[in-house]
Amino acid sequence: MQRYFLLENAELNQRFFIHNTDDIHHIKNVMRMQVDQKLILTFKDQKSLISKIIAFNSDNIELETIEDTTRLTELPVEITIASGMIKGDKYEWMIQKATEMGAHHFIAVQSERTVIKLDEKKRDKKIDRWQKIVKEASEQSMRLTIPDVKYQSNFKAVYDNMNEYDYVLIAYEEEAKRGETSNLHKVITQLEQGQKILLIFGPEGGLTENEVNLFESAEKVGLGPRILRAETAPLYALSALSYQLELMR
Amino acid sequence: MQRYFLLENAELNQRFFIHNTDDIHHIKNVMRMQVDQKLILTFKDQKSLISKIIAFNSDNIELETIEDTTRLTELPVEITIASGMIKGDKYEWMIQKATEMGAHHFIAVQSERTVIKLDEKKRDKKIDRWQKIVKEASEQSMRLTIPDVKYQSNFKAVYDNMNEYDYVLIAYEEEAKRGETSNLHKVITQLEQGQKILLIFGPEGGLTENEVNLFESAEKVGLGPRILRAETAPLYALSALSYQLELMR
Repeated sequence: MQRYFLLENAELNQRFFIHNTDDIHHIKNVMRMQVDQKLILTFKDQKSLISKIIAFNSDNIELETIEDTTRLTELPVEITIASGMIKGDKYEWMIQKATEMGAHHFIAVQSERTVIKLDEKKRDKKIDRWQKIVKEASEQSMRLTIPDVKYQSNFKAVYDNMNEYDYVLIAYEEEAKRGETSNLHKVITQLEQGQKILLIFGPEGGLTENEVNLFESAEKVGLGPRILRAETAPLYALSALSYQLELMR
Repeated sequence: MQRYFLLENAELNQRFFIHNTDDIHHIKNVMRMQVDQKLILTFKDQKSLISKIIAFNSDNIELETIEDTTRLTELPVEITIASGMIKGDKYEWMIQKATEMGAHHFIAVQSERTVIKLDEKKRDKKIDRWQKIVKEASEQSMRLTIPDVKYQSNFKAVYDNMNEYDYVLIAYEEEAKRGETSNLHKVITQLEQGQKILLIFGPEGGLTENEVNLFESAEKVGLGPRILRAETAPLYALSALSYQLELMR
């Protein structure tokens, strides 16, 4: 059943209106839904209610919420992925899959080795596009929240906000080569419900020594013995988190 | 350092020759390497030796192996991913990333809901292309072996070979919805070094009831509470396997 987000608080047996034009287009023209057919509305408070279409009005779709179908599809910890921007559609691919896998926030960093340069106009367009990708991935994977995407012009800006997080992990290729096996496991085992975790990844060329040194106080973690590409590494980390925190309980 | 595969047995302080035209092109024209520069040769017996370029001959590159740099970059179990073919470049993404994450064999299945139809000529071209993608991903992630890609015209053919495997796991979306949490963990905990594991995934439209029923004796596993796309699900499974078998020891 298709899912759409509404920035309101959930209430059963209540009328609600979808005003978002992308969503209206999707419901009317892509899914070709009719009056009386059902979809799922996910609300600001993370409740999901099965809702029946009442009417297609001139600038909105009117629905009535009829059944609670809330399912816990969020990780128990809040994940931010700060990564050096990757070329082309690989960054888009990464944020789509990372959203499917539960990430909550993305920080696209103009890191030292990032090949792409974005002026302010391009940047705004890109952020809009990335936000759309993440919203659609969120809906399809039945997430209860839509991740956000922000831009930072360097990793120093990310470093400046380190205190916002309970844990900061840096995925560092050198740890993979040295045979480091247990730090990721050790950290995940200590995590508690609701904590905020920052995961740091480099772009294709990796992080520079300067960038790594910024995060000296972070936990350095290996992601297994194989070298993972920049767009793959976050997915390994998210899967490991999900596996331990959601499947091993 | 760049890595290239040689289907021979490793020997230190020995002369070897690269004849593969793609590799020669990569070394000469892409990496623009010179005599005396070094690269890594990974041999049939999974040893990796740092090798120095001795000469660029008319149809080969001559090297001398000078140092052992073998690193265990293979999962302790042998993984086959049999999945309904996915449209467009999404299947290519999946096998590339699954190779980075350690999969050993791919079976591309013309499953009931697979949208793409491949005649024999297209099929051979596709398999060639997929094999190239997997070889390149293998080299970059420092794998000691190159996965292979095969085609099957339906899942019944996959079912017919089930006895080749020690474990067969089927990733089934209904399990995710039903809140199944522990089966993947239970199975991974039982795995022993060298066992052969078959992982079954559907295409975008999922597996049909007939296809699921074929694998009635397989372990049905959920991959967490979020619905993962067809090309994402194998990556979750591989990360979980690596996390438990390689990082949690």
